[in-house]
Amino acid sequence: MSAFSTSALSDLYATRAKTLASAQIWPEHEGDLISLAYGFAAPELFPTDDLLSATVEVLAEDAAEALNYGPTYPGLVQFVVDRLRAQGTPAEADNVLISYGSSQVLALLPQVFIDPGDVVIVEGPTFMGAVRHFALAGARLITVNVDDEGLDIDALETTLRDLAKRGQRPKFIYTIPTFHNPSGTLMPLERRCRLATLAKEYGVLVVEDDAYGDLYFENPPPPRLSALDHEGWVVQVGTFSKILAPGLRMGWACGNRDIIQRLASFKLEGSSGPFLTRMVERYCADGRLERHIADLRAAYRARRDLMLAAIAREWPPDVHVAKPEGGFFVWARLPQGLSATALLAEAEKHGVTFVPGTHFYADGQGDDAFRLSFSFVPPAHIADGIARIGAAFRTLG
Amino acid sequence: MSAFSTSALSDLYATRAKTLASAQIWPEHEGDLISLAYGFAAPELFPTDDLLSATVEVLAEDAAEALNYGPTYPGLVQFVVDRLRAQGTPAEADNVLISYGSSQVLALLPQVFIDPGDVVIVEGPTFMGAVRHFALAGARLITVNVDDEGLDIDALETTLRDLAKRGQRPKFIYTIPTFHNPSGTLMPLERRCRLATLAKEYGVLVVEDDAYGDLYFENPPPPRLSALDHEGWVVQVGTFSKILAPGLRMGWACGNRDIIQRLASFKLEGSSGPFLTRMVERYCADGRLERHIADLRAAYRARRDLMLAAIAREWPPDVHVAKPEGGFFVWARLPQGLSATALLAEAEKHGVTFVPGTHFYADGQGDDAFRLSFSFVPPAHIADGIARIGAAFRTLG
Repeated sequence: MSAFSTSALSDLYATRAKTLASAQIWPEHEGDLISLAYGFAAPELFPTDDLLSATVEVLAEDAAEALNYGPTYPGLVQFVVDRLRAQGTPAEADNVLISYGSSQVLALLPQVFIDPGDVVIVEGPTFMGAVRHFALAGARLITVNVDDEGLDIDALETTLRDLAKRGQRPKFIYTIPTFHNPSGTLMPLERRCRLATLAKEYGVLVVEDDAYGDLYFENPPPPRLSALDHEGWVVQVGTFSKILAPGLRMGWACGNRDIIQRLASFKLEGSSGPFLTRMVERYCADGRLERHIADLRAAYRARRDLMLAAIAREWPPDVHVAKPEGGFFVWARLPQGLSATALLAEAEKHGVTFVPGTHFYADGQGDDAFRLSFSFVPPAHIADGIARIGAAFRTLG
Repeated sequence: MSAFSTSALSDLYATRAKTLASAQIWPEHEGDLISLAYGFAAPELFPTDDLLSATVEVLAEDAAEALNYGPTYPGLVQFVVDRLRAQGTPAEADNVLISYGSSQVLALLPQVFIDPGDVVIVEGPTFMGAVRHFALAGARLITVNVDDEGLDIDALETTLRDLAKRGQRPKFIYTIPTFHNPSGTLMPLERRCRLATLAKEYGVLVVEDDAYGDLYFENPPPPRLSALDHEGWVVQVGTFSKILAPGLRMGWACGNRDIIQRLASFKLEGSSGPFLTRMVERYCADGRLERHIADLRAAYRARRDLMLAAIAREWPPDVHVAKPEGGFFVWARLPQGLSATALLAEAEKHGVTFVPGTHFYADGQGDDAFRLSFSFVPPAHIADGIARIGAAFRTLG
């Protein structure tokens, strides 16, 4: 179709489609580079045999329903509900929407909540894959920083109070309280309670991204924000991507029924597929998912330990690295005067890559920090990758 | 979460989300009713064994890519491209977007093209599942009727000319030229050529819904509209739902690259899943899909013939029923003075149901016609269902 003309066609676009948002870029093959960049799941841990068994079972027992038109399989909704209730979140079936990954919910939320100019509070650093959607919808982003215990609630309260004085009510606060991406931090219970109270007091929704909550390495995390709220001020966004397989694209939102209905109405393609929702439910049944999560905890914990041990051996002691108690990431803060962008340039010459902190802030901060992922790199490469960054430190030093 | 309050939460909704669109309703179990209503695929024809083999192959050979984050599998894009090219449509990879069913594309099109008040031309009758999305986006719908040869192109030309005189340029024309839903009609080549010419002349996009084009019973249909246009005025919407399985939710758009990029940017959840796109591609490979389509043609042709033979035996001769040359549907036009709604009420008393014509018009027409689907009903029930409608005719008589 190289002869396609676009001159007059382009007059037909709706206002919202006149400009084209940049497309997602997928990583190229990086040759011999050791990549500590991607927050992907460890492919060698995928439960492929059990997923195949689940497919066999669905196609043997339920093909007529699984392969025809139909709604999201109610059994998967119920599985998610039961799991949320076991974690303390008082969900019912109409509080849950099954989605194509949590990223779909994060993209739908601004459809439901954001008119251009509306305020959204985000963490600094944060997961920009979500924040990008808020910005595209025209949200005015205000960053509140994260410290070693997650979102700084004192700073949040000051921000909310200042906004209220000016008559401004933010639409929502986007937070990752449990094994934060990128900082790895865990918000303690006291902060969680204060956050839930502030949400109610200021009438602001909290969007709790719980992508990593199941992947704790020592102790289970404190109650989810969604378990501390009983009046609908928290929407939890969850996913099977970290605990099962990202490639299946299966996640959920849990929240106030009225919000869930609206998210569903903007989910234009309808249900998340009778086949896929049955396949995931069948996999999860009979305790398979919980046994798999236990295996993942052990495997990712071992990788974290490998990475922290190598850092202790190989890096200058004035690089601040907190021990993440779960999740996929180690966040490193540089001593005064060192630039993560400059370190990355040097590190790539040494054959290793990571993501500089500037990629995780909506407000331009972040050149004093960087993110390492221990989830996707083969364990045998972790020590070598960390040593190469150590060499880059010495070259810059 | 029964204690959830919605009073103050509801203040947070964006303007576009203040009112809630009604949700899709899925059919309830209908007891002993013979349903000729649903345009579902025949579940007993699903190629479950081959789908399972495809899953085995993907998980055995490609699990690391299929189950992790990643783009739509390029092999599936190429498969669709090759198939379109074999049908005469000069597609390249960047002309194709893989979607969660064609319904997703039909829902995304108004995002890209419709500002409130924009004109969209639709057929009467038509597939309201698509038109509903155009209306929700604020389109002003103008209906041009279908006759025994599909969209009435003379009437379309008159409509376009009248609109142009008033300075109004429609955004697109939504048409199902091949084995139309609900009328079963096939637009002949001469009309297709005129439609493509009119699109270019008036600068109006044509959205060609090709859901049924592969399911011909006698001869292959004339070239698709997308094969007659070389300047980007046609977007073809296609689906694996009728030729493979609706429950997989897999379809595509093919059109001008600039339009495809915009559709992709409004497909908020990103790719259509590394796993599902690989599974469908693997199923399609090695000629499996084409052999299956040949089987479907024979099976649906036999059902059509059963239905038409029963109609000839059981119904009054003044009911107008054209012989569909493909697809899923028989469209019946009633003699003067008979109401499809009244007939349906009587038919349900006789234990059979169908969809009255009023469900297929955006402008209130249709009580003089109704749609029968022969795709989903077990073949053994077709003659009985038709006979029950015949009894309803006699009761109304």
